[in-house]
Amino acid sequence: MIRNEVFSCFLFYAVLLVIKMYVIAIITGQVRLRKKAFANPEDALRHGGLQYHREDPYVERCRRAHVNDMENILPFLFLGAIYSLTGPSLAVARLHFLVFFVGRVVHSVAYLLALRAPTRSVAYSVAQIPCVSMALQILVAVAAYA
Amino acid sequence: MIRNEVFSCFLFYAVLLVIKMYVIAIITGQVRLRKKAFANPEDALRHGGLQYHREDPYVERCRRAHVNDMENILPFLFLGAIYSLTGPSLAVARLHFLVFFVGRVVHSVAYLLALRAPTRSVAYSVAQIPCVSMALQILVAVAAYA
Amino acid sequence: MIRNEVFSCFLFYAVLLVIKMYVIAIITGQVRLRKKAFANPEDALRHGGLQYHREDPYVERCRRAHVNDMENILPFLFLGAIYSLTGPSLAVARLHFLVFFVGRVVHSVAYLLALRAPTRSVAYSVAQIPCVSMALQILVAVAAYA
Repeated sequence: MIRNEVFSCFLFYAVLLVIKMYVIAIITGQVRLRKKAFANPEDALRHGGLQYHREDPYVERCRRAHVNDMENILPFLFLGAIYSLTGPSLAVARLHFLVFFVGRVVHSVAYLLALRAPTRSVAYSVAQIPCVSMALQILVAVAAYA
Repeated sequence: MIRNEVFSCFLFYAVLLVIKMYVIAIITGQVRLRKKAFANPEDALRHGGLQYHREDPYVERCRRAHVNDMENILPFLFLGAIYSLTGPSLAVARLHFLVFFVGRVVHSVAYLLALRAPTRSVAYSVAQIPCVSMALQILVAVAAYA
Repeated sequence: MIRNEVFSCFLFYAVLLVIKMYVIAIITGQVRLRKKAFANPEDALRHGGLQYHREDPYVERCRRAHVNDMENILPFLFLGAIYSLTGPSLAVARLHFLVFFVGRVVHSVAYLLALRAPTRSVAYSVAQIPCVSMALQILVAVAAYA
């Protein structure tokens, strides 16, 4: 499977996106430390006192970026893997993965830098196109054997 | 793998559930626009002003429905795929997938329409039964080779 | 695939972690009932009245533990499965899975019992090490065929 060109191409972008999600988690943690805004009293106690057990708008922004990644990148990990097994041409498959990858990177950048609307929403919508396309193609492939 | 009947059956329901999750995301976005309740100031600015950077109870309900989907449908994508590879009979496997599928659709409808309790909780619990069943069967299958 | 020793070893820990996530969901539900703190008015109405449609700090703690599981265990299900297919030695692979497994179990215990910081953060960081290691090894394996 690893030796399948389409599947390898998928894995390349998929793993980079997982790493991108991890980076957002790291950024969230760093912002919590810098802004002194902790979700748990035990963390606040360790970093200066219970007054730092509080919310911060930028921490919440990082959280929303992360949750949106989970809503979109995690289903992609599934759809992309299955789609790769349906025998698409490498060029078409790569286009699907690349559009999703670029869309999600732009989405994260737009979220964390609070770029002017609708940058983030456009990136989200563009990234959804290959996902819906892959979902429909899987349904078609499955219908032939189910 | 795609040509395996049980796996195809799994994929059919799995992909429909991923599409169902996407639909909840679309509904959330539409409710945000209609109720003018945006999580980000840049979105509020684009749609009338910072006073619309606010929470709305129905938007939060959509969010909870989506998060609950992630908590349950995403692990199903994993468990169902692996379970399909353990060689179950098609009839038994289809029953697992169908119960989960119907349970999760009822869960979403009950959540979005705020149906009287315990409709939603019952749908959630019923959908968990095939997941726990698949998890245990995978553990048994793995124990034989691990 | 199921007969592959490394993959079986991965499945063993992966399925246990999915069950661990389900247990956190069950605990959250039990805490909601015991503390009478419901996220939805229809649930509150069934359990005594709308005054119980409210937040509770311990319920929120359970929620955060669950969301953190999703952020970390769900990507592990993907990375671990793919990594198993790249042909690692059983001993090295088992070490990856075991460190992640123990790290996540300690993370959940530390979260639910509010253990003194930085217990939880250390468990989280330790569990991330095998994930980053697997991600990098997949990228290397893919680079050879992509």
